[in-house]
Amino acid sequence: MTGDLLIRSVRPWPHTAGGPETDVLCQGGSIAAINSDIPAPDGVPVVDGRGGVLLPAFADAHAHLDSTRLGLPFREHTAGPGLAGLIENDRANWRSAEKGVTDRATYTLGRTIAAGATLVRSHAQVDTDSGLERLEGVLAAKEAHAARATVQVVAFPQCGILRDPGTEDLLDQALRAGADLVGGIDPAGYDRDPVRHLDIVFGLAERHQRGVDVHLHDSGELGAFEIELICERTAALGMAGRVTISHAFALSTVDSDRQVALIDLLAANDIAVTTVAGGRANPLPLRRLRRAGVRIGLGQDGIRDYWSPYGNGDMLDRAWQLAYRNGFRADDEIEMCVDIATRGGAHALGVDRHRMLEGDSADLVVVPGDSVAAAVMDREVRTLVVRAGTLVAANGELYA
Amino acid sequence: MTGDLLIRSVRPWPHTAGGPETDVLCQGGSIAAINSDIPAPDGVPVVDGRGGVLLPAFADAHAHLDSTRLGLPFREHTAGPGLAGLIENDRANWRSAEKGVTDRATYTLGRTIAAGATLVRSHAQVDTDSGLERLEGVLAAKEAHAARATVQVVAFPQCGILRDPGTEDLLDQALRAGADLVGGIDPAGYDRDPVRHLDIVFGLAERHQRGVDVHLHDSGELGAFEIELICERTAALGMAGRVTISHAFALSTVDSDRQVALIDLLAANDIAVTTVAGGRANPLPLRRLRRAGVRIGLGQDGIRDYWSPYGNGDMLDRAWQLAYRNGFRADDEIEMCVDIATRGGAHALGVDRHRMLEGDSADLVVVPGDSVAAAVMDREVRTLVVRAGTLVAANGELYA
Ligand SMILES: [Zn+2]
Ligand SMILES: [Zn+2]
Repeated sequence: MTGDLLIRSVRPWPHTAGGPETDVLCQGGSIAAINSDIPAPDGVPVVDGRGGVLLPAFADAHAHLDSTRLGLPFREHTAGPGLAGLIENDRANWRSAEKGVTDRATYTLGRTIAAGATLVRSHAQVDTDSGLERLEGVLAAKEAHAARATVQVVAFPQCGILRDPGTEDLLDQALRAGADLVGGIDPAGYDRDPVRHLDIVFGLAERHQRGVDVHLHDSGELGAFEIELICERTAALGMAGRVTISHAFALSTVDSDRQVALIDLLAANDIAVTTVAGGRANPLPLRRLRRAGVRIGLGQDGIRDYWSPYGNGDMLDRAWQLAYRNGFRADDEIEMCVDIATRGGAHALGVDRHRMLEGDSADLVVVPGDSVAAAVMDREVRTLVVRAGTLVAANGELYA
Repeated sequence: MTGDLLIRSVRPWPHTAGGPETDVLCQGGSIAAINSDIPAPDGVPVVDGRGGVLLPAFADAHAHLDSTRLGLPFREHTAGPGLAGLIENDRANWRSAEKGVTDRATYTLGRTIAAGATLVRSHAQVDTDSGLERLEGVLAAKEAHAARATVQVVAFPQCGILRDPGTEDLLDQALRAGADLVGGIDPAGYDRDPVRHLDIVFGLAERHQRGVDVHLHDSGELGAFEIELICERTAALGMAGRVTISHAFALSTVDSDRQVALIDLLAANDIAVTTVAGGRANPLPLRRLRRAGVRIGLGQDGIRDYWSPYGNGDMLDRAWQLAYRNGFRADDEIEMCVDIATRGGAHALGVDRHRMLEGDSADLVVVPGDSVAAAVMDREVRTLVVRAGTLVAANGELYA
């Protein structure tokens, strides 16, 4: 039956270090049992975890599959300064890529799955230059890998809504064309009118009954003000649990008291945050956020594109970045990063049956390593990737 | 003849991107010619670079080979808080490692060479607990790989000189036993008396005519004051060009004017700085330092040891970290990081014939990649590692 699988010889987190190897039985796409020496039911395929660490599959909470150039010849980075320079560089070059959006997004999504992610939230740029072309490419990639991963697509107004007149209508079309969420970008710092920008975003969300995911690079008090505006709209529309703030640099650029107040506000409105563990911006206050109950996800951001040469499709690599960037050395700190990259990230995306408990969806990854922390440090090729009880990748390659 | 080698089909930096493949002839350990289609002289071995990017070999300017556990079972990180907690954790555990210092240092140095470094400066802890045992282990590793790499060993008073009475005498013994430089550590913040600490360090350096390499984590004005003390002693003893400050966090924790003044002081005394591209501390002002003519090296720091689970022997990985941590995206910025990891780092260590010019030492590494920036992003296994015209590693493994 679809979604039936017996995984032999894995060490499920948190009982990895020195713990005995065990088996995992998947039935009908869910985890039926985690136990030693489970007899193989008739006709159920059996795969060997080779003693690796078993984790929930990775959840990439913030990707840009529409711009990726992974797998194509490396291209010199030609952007001018600032966000405007990056936007212009992308606009000037994306159409001349060696392959179209669909092929590029499909390839990179495949690499992401092969590296262990079965849940991905990808933004797709919607603007008056590209129309819905990028969104359609990401939707096609989603369709191509439908059996291997769940993909949430955000209709993302990268070039602004007010700055790029016509975008509001395109976002509306995008939501009718299959986008799962509506995005926003620096309502004040980039689009220059935080109230109008957010009213449009939340208006679209309400009209289409979809979630919201806003890019918020604005820092300090400006960004903090925008977080308040987002919280007010979330409360007014009863959208608790359906709103995400990506980056949220304001949280790490205000003083400690203000930070705590903002975190409480996010918690009260059940607003999730996502980070991409960037190299330069101050890290989010991960522990404070988690203690307050704020859901946090980790994402790849752009993946070798016109914006940045970084990124490779590997969420375990990104979990390493999150740990490294925070200066984490202790095993429990590194495991917190893995949690954010897996079950915590899934929770941030509104997916709850991703905890590796019996009865949960059998979305799992097996990584070689003495312990979870060792697996993060070594980032070896993934032994197995399982999605809803079906083997979708092995040894770093998609399983046909 | 020793040091004769013909390397075929490489693209030497900076002419990598789209440039033609060329050959490199090494004679007597030096680069004799870089040209296309060099005929193979009789009896000279020929190796194939397979079209990879040719760089100067990596220079690891700051390692701790004496504490590494690379290749051993992964060990939970058990240190308490702060520098004292790290020192105590190491002291409590290093003797019970599965292998002794010599074996561990030799293994990790081998991995470092196989990843493309032929020049390494390693600190070796000298304290009243371990005496010269760790130093001897690092010296043995240096000897084991003498044909493959140049290793500079720093007698490093990790536990302080004044806090750990008897260390001054041990440092003296260490310099007689083969240490190349004398180290120091946070003369104020850790050892509690910056003048006495530095007088001892520079006194030993003068007596033995050796260089100095001081760990300086102290930040802000305290660290800035210590930089001044180091500069004063360097000038007084005529030691310009022979002093290194490792980490130098003060440079990135004072205001911009003070930073410029300190950089000018370092330049005036030809004092080098090294960084390990840590995840949490503010990055050094790389461009300002280089514009002022200050030599900068990059190092691995500890390599999976009782201090930290990070590190893997790979200086290209570390160059990636340096670029990522600085938020560099442009190719020339990423190439600056590669320069710091190669010829710039060698220069910081006082090694000048490491520029990949004709007549320079033939210390070279070949990495697959479309360009230098691509090679940094992908960090593929090194095709060839050449030290003084001799092949010492290929495809990630030491060449027997
Ligand atoms: Zn983004
Ligand atoms: Zn050090």
